[in-house]
Amino acid sequence: MHRLDEIAAAIGARLEGRGDLSIRRAAEPADAGPEDLALAADPRYAAELARGRARAALLWEGADWQALGLEAALLVRRPRYALAALSRRLDQGPGIGPGIHPAAIVDPAATVGEDAAIGPFAVIGAGVVLGPGARIGPHVTVGAGTRIGSDVLLHAGVRIAAGVVIGDRFIAQPNAVVGGDGFSFVTPERSRVEAARATLADGAEAAPQAWARIHSLGGVRIGDDVELGALSAIDRGTNRDTVVGRGTNIDNLVQIGHNCIIGRDCMFCGNVGISGSVSIGDRVVLGGKVGVGDHVFIGDDVVAGGGTRIRTNVPKGRVILGDPAVKMETQLAINKALRRLPRFMERVAHGNKAVPKEDDSE
Amino acid sequence: MHRLDEIAAAIGARLEGRGDLSIRRAAEPADAGPEDLALAADPRYAAELARGRARAALLWEGADWQALGLEAALLVRRPRYALAALSRRLDQGPGIGPGIHPAAIVDPAATVGEDAAIGPFAVIGAGVVLGPGARIGPHVTVGAGTRIGSDVLLHAGVRIAAGVVIGDRFIAQPNAVVGGDGFSFVTPERSRVEAARATLADGAEAAPQAWARIHSLGGVRIGDDVELGALSAIDRGTNRDTVVGRGTNIDNLVQIGHNCIIGRDCMFCGNVGISGSVSIGDRVVLGGKVGVGDHVFIGDDVVAGGGTRIRTNVPKGRVILGDPAVKMETQLAINKALRRLPRFMERVAHGNKAVPKEDDSE
Amino acid sequence: MHRLDEIAAAIGARLEGRGDLSIRRAAEPADAGPEDLALAADPRYAAELARGRARAALLWEGADWQALGLEAALLVRRPRYALAALSRRLDQGPGIGPGIHPAAIVDPAATVGEDAAIGPFAVIGAGVVLGPGARIGPHVTVGAGTRIGSDVLLHAGVRIAAGVVIGDRFIAQPNAVVGGDGFSFVTPERSRVEAARATLADGAEAAPQAWARIHSLGGVRIGDDVELGALSAIDRGTNRDTVVGRGTNIDNLVQIGHNCIIGRDCMFCGNVGISGSVSIGDRVVLGGKVGVGDHVFIGDDVVAGGGTRIRTNVPKGRVILGDPAVKMETQLAINKALRRLPRFMERVAHGNKAVPKEDDSE
Repeated sequence: MHRLDEIAAAIGARLEGRGDLSIRRAAEPADAGPEDLALAADPRYAAELARGRARAALLWEGADWQALGLEAALLVRRPRYALAALSRRLDQGPGIGPGIHPAAIVDPAATVGEDAAIGPFAVIGAGVVLGPGARIGPHVTVGAGTRIGSDVLLHAGVRIAAGVVIGDRFIAQPNAVVGGDGFSFVTPERSRVEAARATLADGAEAAPQAWARIHSLGGVRIGDDVELGALSAIDRGTNRDTVVGRGTNIDNLVQIGHNCIIGRDCMFCGNVGISGSVSIGDRVVLGGKVGVGDHVFIGDDVVAGGGTRIRTNVPKGRVILGDPAVKMETQLAINKALRRLPRFMERVAHGNKAVPKEDDSE
Repeated sequence: MHRLDEIAAAIGARLEGRGDLSIRRAAEPADAGPEDLALAADPRYAAELARGRARAALLWEGADWQALGLEAALLVRRPRYALAALSRRLDQGPGIGPGIHPAAIVDPAATVGEDAAIGPFAVIGAGVVLGPGARIGPHVTVGAGTRIGSDVLLHAGVRIAAGVVIGDRFIAQPNAVVGGDGFSFVTPERSRVEAARATLADGAEAAPQAWARIHSLGGVRIGDDVELGALSAIDRGTNRDTVVGRGTNIDNLVQIGHNCIIGRDCMFCGNVGISGSVSIGDRVVLGGKVGVGDHVFIGDDVVAGGGTRIRTNVPKGRVILGDPAVKMETQLAINKALRRLPRFMERVAHGNKAVPKEDDSE
Repeated sequence: MHRLDEIAAAIGARLEGRGDLSIRRAAEPADAGPEDLALAADPRYAAELARGRARAALLWEGADWQALGLEAALLVRRPRYALAALSRRLDQGPGIGPGIHPAAIVDPAATVGEDAAIGPFAVIGAGVVLGPGARIGPHVTVGAGTRIGSDVLLHAGVRIAAGVVIGDRFIAQPNAVVGGDGFSFVTPERSRVEAARATLADGAEAAPQAWARIHSLGGVRIGDDVELGALSAIDRGTNRDTVVGRGTNIDNLVQIGHNCIIGRDCMFCGNVGISGSVSIGDRVVLGGKVGVGDHVFIGDDVVAGGGTRIRTNVPKGRVILGDPAVKMETQLAINKALRRLPRFMERVAHGNKAVPKEDDSE
């Protein structure tokens, strides 16, 4: 149980009403019971509050908490931001540890920091340096020579290969992979793909030939405060490291190819795929399922809507959408035109240039 | 070996010919040997039957099995449906068990039902309740306090986090993940993404700022008879559970975000990505690589073709396609128009409004 | 350290200058130190060479290495191809082995070839045949009866199910899955999906009904020299094997459905999704995020650009792009037309058929 006055101090909220109330957990307004703190970010939630049984709530600045039937309120200017601090305080963690489980295998030549917890069947290789406060789940693998900072959390089944360097407070969700080999192959002579890229057409001929594998001799370098989602992969570089800057967050099922250089404070949503040798600036946001072609450069502060396919360089600050990516407003205009296109073409073909203003074809 | 008369009774087929024949396995008509049951769902397979050496076959209602050279036949109205029962009977399973492998770690405070089989290196946490008849493969992790129903099958490397509730007969393919943290971050002030969503344009400025993490305090609740594909993930909720209704089947490499509420008897094909806080009704079918934006509502019985991108709510019963999703017939008309568009624009630009009826540009 | 004359002989390069120099690793030209071999594939890298401190480099045929300030050079006609042999020679491998780790579980009824290395917590099932020279990482699972050729490398967490046959020199990146069950379900009566496929519209009605599971009784057969990326999945077949031909390379997070027949020397980039029962010829290249619908046939030597959605058969040799896939040149013409479309429609609506030659809207 957490006293409201303690929570208010911890998350920087203004407390009104009974600070001596204690709450057990946070809850949606309609689900909240008498021991829960209801989360009501704006006035739209007032009705749901009434349906629940909360005695206390996290509310928007200016809310009339007494009129809402509450006994106490935590008032904040930006409730969603306050939720970050609140949720961190209430999080009980994944229950790893303490200490090194007897069924874990830690190489005698590995260095494990203070207070590290290592779960059963984890394998920590020779020469690994693991900072203090690490929480390593069951079945995690850390390859030889890899260095990892302090206070990291590697969930069950995470694979960190050899030759990787990771900063502090790294979080990897279950079964994520860091340091798989890059996908890099070459044919003895110019291949059909190279020819097709040059000519953008079928004509190009090439004799059948097998692929030769280019081994990945580089590693992966990840800055502080990075999160990697479940079942996401960051490949090692060919002759240099693949790099992910500090503060960058990566969702589930994301692929980051070899040799990529990713900046700081980026956010890549689920199913994003980034090919090899891509450069991405700081604070770049890629929506779900965005794809990025190889050797592309993306400037700082670019925002790409879900499903965007980035085939060429994007200047900094651009908000983009579509396949191929164009400015979001351009794509929205194209989408609007597309819905009207079949009827438009039919009318023009019949010599009628009048185009309906409204589209009812959905 | 399985006698044909026994199979007929088990799958509800009408037996004709020699019920005393025994078969070893089911096979494609052309591959079938004398000990196989050939699967020939309709008359198109007659020629392939002749190429194989089957003595017995599962056939469509009304087939003249003697003219096909067979000694026995199982006749059914809907052969593909009969295949479900047949394949269940012939499946030898993944060979887990019996019993708890000595190299598994089952917490003393876990409750394991009767006849459960648990493979080597599985880790079953404290307070876990595992129903009778469970088959738990090697390297599976089940987090503390998670409750799982009867007769489930968790293949190798599956990760079920703490605080998850799962019904009966759940199947999870290898390396699937249930209960990873949601992907939820917030900036101290309005971010460029929020600004871009509001204005749909580049103009919006925002000072550089780091992301604060919102921890996931909710769990995951999964109904009876759900299947989760290899390398697929269902994230836990923020302050309430992510929910998947009974009878819903999920293919490989699918992502289901935090707080989603998924109905019953849905089918999500490979590489589907569903963002956070999405509501999906019953019997919804999403084809391969469909993407769904956050906070979207999808009604019952919606069918989305492969690659559809759902950015806004979809009323029940709609059959949709495209990016952004529109009615399938609308998208097909748009696709047809698009193939003719370059030539159409050229002709109009030259003052010739006559548009060819047939498109030869593809 | 590796002497240059030995490297030259091993990779078939022409050595000029000091063959007695030794190098430690390969490096990008600007990063290269005095013990590194700089990789400079063409004259564009000359300036970067000057920024680094390399004494030796791998250079394009005809390069004036002395003018570049080097003491030795390896000259090759196709530097990228030479990099394959060079990187193979310099690769130190993932550090598995030697021998069978005492914490691995190898069934007494499994056959393990000479010089095989098996990491901790690996599980090798009954009846498995594993060829000589295998390197099996930690936490790998190989199911009962599976046969695997010589000199394979299975990285940490790879899952190979029962009943799989794999050739020589197979490489699987971490957490890849071979032999999960196919995704195959059927309803008792015609479903809404079947109806929608037939009519391509909403109208089709179907009573609510649950899915019956078709079990996968087939296996997976993989030829020699195949690579499977991290977190990629190949499903087993329904009544026959899913097949991947020799020399085919598959990137990360790729899904290959049940019953697919994939040819030789193909290359599938990241996030590709291939539905069930697809036939693909030899030397087919699918760019990132390509999706292929079920039962589609793709001929030899097809190249599909990133994001292409293949819904219908593709004749051999075709270079395709778009959704739905058309010839690449057709799609590029459509893309160009689309950027001009909103303004074009507006002008036509206003009776002005003059279309600007240049598009400034992007």
